[in-house]
Amino acid sequence: MKILPKPPFFETSVKNYIYGDAVLEYAMAVDAAAAKYDIDAIFIAPYTEIRRICDQTRRLMVFAPYMDTLRPGRGMTDILPEAVKAAGAIGVLVNHCERPMSLTQIKKTIERANELDLITFACADSVAEAKAIAQFHPDIINPEPTELIGTHEASGMEYVRETLKAIKDLYPDILVEQAAGITKSSQIYDFIMAGNDGAGSASGILKAADPYALLDAMVQSVRKAKDDLKIKKDRRDSHEDCP
Amino acid sequence: MKILPKPPFFETSVKNYIYGDAVLEYAMAVDAAAAKYDIDAIFIAPYTEIRRICDQTRRLMVFAPYMDTLRPGRGMTDILPEAVKAAGAIGVLVNHCERPMSLTQIKKTIERANELDLITFACADSVAEAKAIAQFHPDIINPEPTELIGTHEASGMEYVRETLKAIKDLYPDILVEQAAGITKSSQIYDFIMAGNDGAGSASGILKAADPYALLDAMVQSVRKAKDDLKIKKDRRDSHEDCP
Amino acid sequence: MKILPKPPFFETSVKNYIYGDAVLEYAMAVDAAAAKYDIDAIFIAPYTEIRRICDQTRRLMVFAPYMDTLRPGRGMTDILPEAVKAAGAIGVLVNHCERPMSLTQIKKTIERANELDLITFACADSVAEAKAIAQFHPDIINPEPTELIGTHEASGMEYVRETLKAIKDLYPDILVEQAAGITKSSQIYDFIMAGNDGAGSASGILKAADPYALLDAMVQSVRKAKDDLKIKKDRRDSHEDCP
Amino acid sequence: MKILPKPPFFETSVKNYIYGDAVLEYAMAVDAAAAKYDIDAIFIAPYTEIRRICDQTRRLMVFAPYMDTLRPGRGMTDILPEAVKAAGAIGVLVNHCERPMSLTQIKKTIERANELDLITFACADSVAEAKAIAQFHPDIINPEPTELIGTHEASGMEYVRETLKAIKDLYPDILVEQAAGITKSSQIYDFIMAGNDGAGSASGILKAADPYALLDAMVQSVRKAKDDLKIKKDRRDSHEDCP
Repeated sequence: MKILPKPPFFETSVKNYIYGDAVLEYAMAVDAAAAKYDIDAIFIAPYTEIRRICDQTRRLMVFAPYMDTLRPGRGMTDILPEAVKAAGAIGVLVNHCERPMSLTQIKKTIERANELDLITFACADSVAEAKAIAQFHPDIINPEPTELIGTHEASGMEYVRETLKAIKDLYPDILVEQAAGITKSSQIYDFIMAGNDGAGSASGILKAADPYALLDAMVQSVRKAKDDLKIKKDRRDSHEDCP
Repeated sequence: MKILPKPPFFETSVKNYIYGDAVLEYAMAVDAAAAKYDIDAIFIAPYTEIRRICDQTRRLMVFAPYMDTLRPGRGMTDILPEAVKAAGAIGVLVNHCERPMSLTQIKKTIERANELDLITFACADSVAEAKAIAQFHPDIINPEPTELIGTHEASGMEYVRETLKAIKDLYPDILVEQAAGITKSSQIYDFIMAGNDGAGSASGILKAADPYALLDAMVQSVRKAKDDLKIKKDRRDSHEDCP
Repeated sequence: MKILPKPPFFETSVKNYIYGDAVLEYAMAVDAAAAKYDIDAIFIAPYTEIRRICDQTRRLMVFAPYMDTLRPGRGMTDILPEAVKAAGAIGVLVNHCERPMSLTQIKKTIERANELDLITFACADSVAEAKAIAQFHPDIINPEPTELIGTHEASGMEYVRETLKAIKDLYPDILVEQAAGITKSSQIYDFIMAGNDGAGSASGILKAADPYALLDAMVQSVRKAKDDLKIKKDRRDSHEDCP
Repeated sequence: MKILPKPPFFETSVKNYIYGDAVLEYAMAVDAAAAKYDIDAIFIAPYTEIRRICDQTRRLMVFAPYMDTLRPGRGMTDILPEAVKAAGAIGVLVNHCERPMSLTQIKKTIERANELDLITFACADSVAEAKAIAQFHPDIINPEPTELIGTHEASGMEYVRETLKAIKDLYPDILVEQAAGITKSSQIYDFIMAGNDGAGSASGILKAADPYALLDAMVQSVRKAKDDLKIKKDRRDSHEDCP
C-alpha cells in the first residue's frame, strides 16, 4: 500500500549538480532536517545513489527521477520499475520537463507505478497541462510555472491558485506541490499558506551561498506554515462552535 | 589511467532479467568464477546496483549500460558520467542495439569516457558498422552479428573472422569480443580460439536450466582457451628457435 | 478564419498504403463522392501530394499528417507550418498514435496551427487521453479506441458514448470523430447516429475488395445518417410544438 | 540506374528559410543558372515542393531532405521512399546534422535508397565521422566541418584536404562536397580547385543582400573552376607527352 507524504511536505533533489558522496551527504542533511522539524521530505535521487541513500537515512521518501514501463526481461539500458523499487525508492517522477512523455507513456507509467505501489509525482508546464495530466490521476502534481518565467510574484500567486483549484476541482485527493524558481524560505512558507500540499527547491538550495543553512530554513518554513495553518483552523473551528 | 581487461576475458550482464538482490547474488558468483579461474570479467550492471556490486566484489570490472555526455549541473533524468564513475563503474557500453546512438553521440560519449578514464565497450550490428564504429577508437568492440540471426554456425565463424580482421586492421589495440547468441561454453572456447579477445553471454546464462553451472563452465572455457593458446604459442616459439 | 467541416462529415487518408498517382486518383474519388452526397470530407494527404491534390480537387478539406512548430529559418528536415499551409492544407493531425507528442508539443502545435488558421485534428488513445487532450481545445478529436481492440461491438458503442460525452462536457464545440477499425458503411451510419460529428476509414477502404464501391457507400451512409437525424429532429420539434 | 551529378557540381537548398512560391522561384533561378553555365545542380527541396519543382524545372537534380525506411503500408506520418521518388526526387539526404541517424538507420536508409536508385547524400560532422559514414558507401559525402567553427581559413583547407583524402582512400568513387559556411563565390572556386567534386551553399545565399546575384556568381565559379582544372590537366598531359 502506498503511504503518501503527509501535507505539508518538503521536496528536493540534486539533479546532476552534485554526485557521489556529496549526494549522500546532502540527503543525510535533508533527513536530519525532516526529523528535526517532523516534516515529510521527498528526495529525488540519481539511480546510482538510490540504494545507498535508502540504507543510510531514516525518514526520507526517496523517489527515482524516471522509469520505463517494460517488465523484467530484455532492456539493457532501460530503467526497470522493479529495480527502482528493489533499490528502495517508493516513488517516481513522471513527465519531468527534461524528459517529456506522450500521453500514452504518462498513462502507462502511472499504471505501472500503481501496480508496484510506487508514488507518482507528475510535472506539468502550464494550467492546461496540469488539467490534462490530472486526468491520469497521479498522486502528486508539480505544476512548474514555466509560463511565469520573467514575470513578477503577484501573477505567480495567481498561477499557483489557478493550478491548485483546477487540479483539486478534478481530484481533491491529488497532492499539489510548487517547486519552480524557489530560492527563499519565505516562498516555501507562502506557497504552503496558499493551500499547496508541498513545496520544494533543488538548484535554489544547491546554488545558494550556504546550502545547508537554506535547507534548514526551508524545512523550518514548512513546519511554521503547518503550525500557522493549524492555529488558523483551530480559530475557525472555535468560531464555528460559537452560537 | 585505464586498465583494460586482460585477454582473453569474460563478459556478462543481467539486462533486466533479474533485479535487486538477485543481481548482487549473480555478480558475486561471476566474481568467484573470475577468481577461481584467474580470468578478468566485465559485469554490466543496472545503475541502481553498480555501487553495491562494486562494494561487495573484488575482481569484477563493473560497467554501466549507457551514459549521457552532459557535465555536472542540470539534467534530472540524465546519467551523468561522473556519477557512474563515483558509484564504482570503470567502463560504459556505447551504442547498445537497444539504445542506438548517432555518430556524433558515439564520438562524444567516447571522448567523455576517455576524459574520466572509463573503458568504452561499443556495440556494432554488422561488418560495416564495426568498421564505422572502429573509427572512433573505442577500447572494446562487440560486433553483435545481428546479420546472422537464423543462420548456421559456419557462417557465424566467417562473420566473426571478418569483423575481427576489419577491426584489427584499423586499430590492432581495440579489443574484440563476441557475445551474441552464446548459450554453450564450447562457443566461448571456440570464439577465443578464433582470435577474439573476449567472449560473453547474458540471457544465454540467465535462461539456462542451471545458470550457475553454465556460468562456471563458461569462465572455465575462457581459462582453457587461454592455456591452449599459450601452449600453441610456446610450440610455435620453440619451432622458431629451431634452426 | 477557420471554416470547420460541417457535421456530419467524412474523413479518410491513405497513410502509406498507396503513393504517387494512386493517391491523387483516390483523392479525386473522395472529392467526387463528397460532391455527389453533399458531405464535407477531410483527406489527410502525404506531404508530397498535398499541393497536387489541393490543385485538382474542389471540395476536399486537405490536412497534413503532422507538422513541427518551428518558424521560418533553419530546419532542413522539419515540416514548417507555413509550408504546409502554402501547399494548400487547411488542417493538421496532432498526436497521431504513430507519432505521439508530449503535452508541451501538443499545446505548441495547436497554438501554432491556430496562429495560421489551420484546423487541428487530435488523436487520443483512451477515455483518459481524450479528456486530457481536450484541455488543449483542438478543433476535432478522434478518440481511437485502442482499448477496444479485440472486444465486441457493444462495448465499442459504450466507449464511443463515454468519450463523446467526456469531450462535449468540457468543450461542446470540439467536433468528435470516430475512425478506428471501421470497415463497413453501416458502422459509419451507426457512429453518426450515436451523436458523433464525423466518421472515417483509411485502411478499411484501401484493403477492401472494391475500395471505390466501399468509399461511395460510406459517404452515402454519412448522407443517410444526416437525413435521418434531421427527420428525428423535425419530429421532435413538431412534438414540442404540441401543447 | 542512378545517374550521379557530373563533377564539379553545385548544390543548394532552402531549408525552411522560404516556403511556398518563393521556393519554386528560387529553384527556377538555380535551374536557369545550371543551364547557363552547363553545370549539374542538386536542389534539396521541402517535401511539399518536390513535385512542383520537378515539374517546372529541366536540369535540377531534386533531392528529399530525409526519408524513412518503411515499406508501403501503415505509417501515417512517415516519409515513404516510394512517395519521395514518385514525386520526382532522384536523391535523398542521409544523417543531416539536424536529424542525426544511428549507424543502423544510416545503413538501412542507404540500402533502401539503392533499391530505388535514389542517390544518397550523407552528412558527416568531423574527420572520424566522415570515415565512419564512408563505410556504408553513400554516393556523396558532405563532411560539414563543424569542428572548424570559429577557426581561420587555413585550417579550413586542411580539414577539407584531410576529409577528402580519407574518403577517397576508402572509396575513390564517393563524391565529396563541401558546403558548410560558404558565403562567397571565391570559396566555391577554391573548394573545387582543391579537389572536391562539388560545393554548395544554402543560408549563405538566402541571407545575402542580393541572393540571385550571388547564386549566379557561385554557379559561374563552379564553371570557371571546371575550365581551369581542364586547362591544368591539359597542360599536365601535354608535359607528360614531352620526352
